[in-house]
Formats: sequence, structure tokens, C-alpha cells
Amino acid sequence: MANTRAYLAGPDVFLPDPKALAEKKKKICAQYGLEGVFPLDAEVARGELSLREFGLLISRVNEGLIRSCQLVIANVTPFRGPSADVGTAYEMGFARALGLCVFAYTNAVADFATRTRAFVANTGLRDNGQEEDLEHMLIESFDLPDNLMLAGAVVGSGGVLSARAAPSDGLYTALGAFEECVMAAARSIS
Amino acid sequence: MANTRAYLAGPDVFLPDPKALAEKKKKICAQYGLEGVFPLDAEVARGELSLREFGLLISRVNEGLIRSCQLVIANVTPFRGPSADVGTAYEMGFARALGLCVFAYTNAVADFATRTRAFVANTGLRDNGQEEDLEHMLIESFDLPDNLMLAGAVVGSGGVLSARAAPSDGLYTALGAFEECVMAAARSIS
Repeated sequence: MANTRAYLAGPDVFLPDPKALAEKKKKICAQYGLEGVFPLDAEVARGELSLREFGLLISRVNEGLIRSCQLVIANVTPFRGPSADVGTAYEMGFARALGLCVFAYTNAVADFATRTRAFVANTGLRDNGQEEDLEHMLIESFDLPDNLMLAGAVVGSGGVLSARAAPSDGLYTALGAFEECVMAAARSIS
Repeated sequence: MANTRAYLAGPDVFLPDPKALAEKKKKICAQYGLEGVFPLDAEVARGELSLREFGLLISRVNEGLIRSCQLVIANVTPFRGPSADVGTAYEMGFARALGLCVFAYTNAVADFATRTRAFVANTGLRDNGQEEDLEHMLIESFDLPDNLMLAGAVVGSGGVLSARAAPSDGLYTALGAFEECVMAAARSIS
């Protein structure tokens, strides 16, 4: 039987040595019978392309990798703001529309509203009791770990969201919550 | 002939009066022969649902609205960080995988790397010349307006990205760049 392929979405690609983390994640996947597929696996060469053309080529290649997978395990640890990396969010939506099962993990355990409040520094109350930031934009508070569309992808597709606090120097490298997702994914296909 | 339906993704839903902006957007759409579909159109009632269940219901309803549309016009103006709102990014990926044409606009004209540098306050250089933030995470620099997956959705689907500077008090409400997208979308279907 062909392996079940899991696309490993996340801001991991921005690490100084993304391939080292990719190897660790793939090893954990293999321990549970999954084949981990990392965005950088395709080894896209820039050649004569402009930076812009190269970026667009990488996006096409990543979409192709997602299409080749049966599930996604997304790192939704907050990245440069209170929410997940937008590239990861995009890939979760892409996978969900294709019918893939979406798992997600975060190395930050504070809930979304709490993180947003900390990020915007100051909040106010609307006449209807809703909380807003200083630019009068709503603080989303649905008792979910991030924007409701991301949570909806996980729950709606039958996936699992795993959250574990990581030490601050391991925010993007700790793999405990990731392994919980892998275990849940392995159970879901067995 | 049935109307061409355009899903109006964006952080607009977090405004104090999102329906007022929705009406303006729909009016512009109608002027160009499109039917604008706003995330709040479904008027989902909370009833006895927990906040969490209510959030997940809204996500399912929004996915259904996207499925009912032929194209998306996404507001990718940076939201609480250097990138677009993650819910919007998710919806762009969802739409792209369904084969919809994805248009996007931003009311901030600085490019992604410039915005990211301003956000992270300080950057360093890797031995290979790549720029990183103080947490050693890469500054993405592909001469694109945001993460390459978002740009890839627009270009790959035949959409248009429109950027226009807005006054600071109109960052989430100015509609000049939006109207450029609507015009391009109308041309694309005529």
C-alpha cells in the first residue's frame, strides 16, 4: 500500500536550518507510519528567474506537494503577530478545500483573544460589549486557538489540534505538540 | 444568466460597522455587474451554541459561501503584523483549490520585506547573505506584496493584485484599490 503522505506546513521554512527540522519531523512521521512531505523537498532551483518569478514558482510547487498528500500537519504557532503564519493559513485552506484532513499544533498555549490583547497593548469596549483594539478592530473571542477559519478546518476535517508550551528558545523547533498530531493522524488512518 | 458572485474576504468583518462597508462594496460590485457576497451575509444566529461551537459554525457557513462564488476579492491589507489577516489567507487558499479566480487588494503599498523589517525592529545577516529577525527567522524577500503563497494564488488563478496607499484612518475602509480589483474582475468575465 502506498504511504500516507503528510504535508508539513509551517513557518519552519524560515528557520536558519529548515532542513534539519524537516529531517526530525520526517523521522517522527516515519515512526508512526506516515511519510512527511516538507515544503522544501522539491529543491526548486532559481536559475535565471527573477526573485518574483522564483517566489511564484515555489508557490506552485508547494501547491503541487499539497495535492500529492492525504493530510496536513500545520504548525500554527504564532508568527510575527498574534496569529499563525499566513502562508500556513493559506495552505490549510487549500488542503481543506481539496478534502484533506488538517491537523495543527502550536507551541504557544495562550488562547487567541489573550494573545491578541497582549499584541495590541490596549483595548476598549464597544457599546454592545465587544472588545476592540485602538484602531477599533474587533478582538476575536470564540474560545478557539486562532482565527475561527483555521480552527474550523481542523475540526471540520476530523483533525486534531495540539497545543503545548515550549521554552522561548524552542518556539519554532519544539516537537512535542507536533508528535501528538502525528500520533493522532496515524490513528485516524489505521 | 446567473450573476457572477464575488466573495469579499478580509478583516472588514472586524470593523465596528462591517455591514456599512459591506453595503459600499456590494454597491461597487453591482456597478460592474458582479454580486458581492460578504462573510456576514448568512446572518448566523448563535442560539444555544457555546462561543466555540458558534465560531466553528461561522467557519462552515463561510466555506459554503465561498463554494457558492466564482471569484474572491480579498482585502490583504496588513492586519496586526506585517501580513494579511490569517482568516483571509485561509479563504484565499480554500478558493484557489476550488479553482476560483482570486483577486486581492491592499491599502498599504510598502512591499512585504520592508513591512517585515519595520515590524521586527531589528534584523541580522546570515552567513549566506539572507536577512533574519532577532529570533533568527528569515525575512521573506521575493519582491512580492506578502507571503509567496498569497501572491501565487492571485497570479496563478489569473487574478489581479491592486495596491493603493490609504490615509491612516482609512486603512481598513478605503475602497480605491478594491474598486480596481472589481473592475479587473468584471473585465475577466466579460
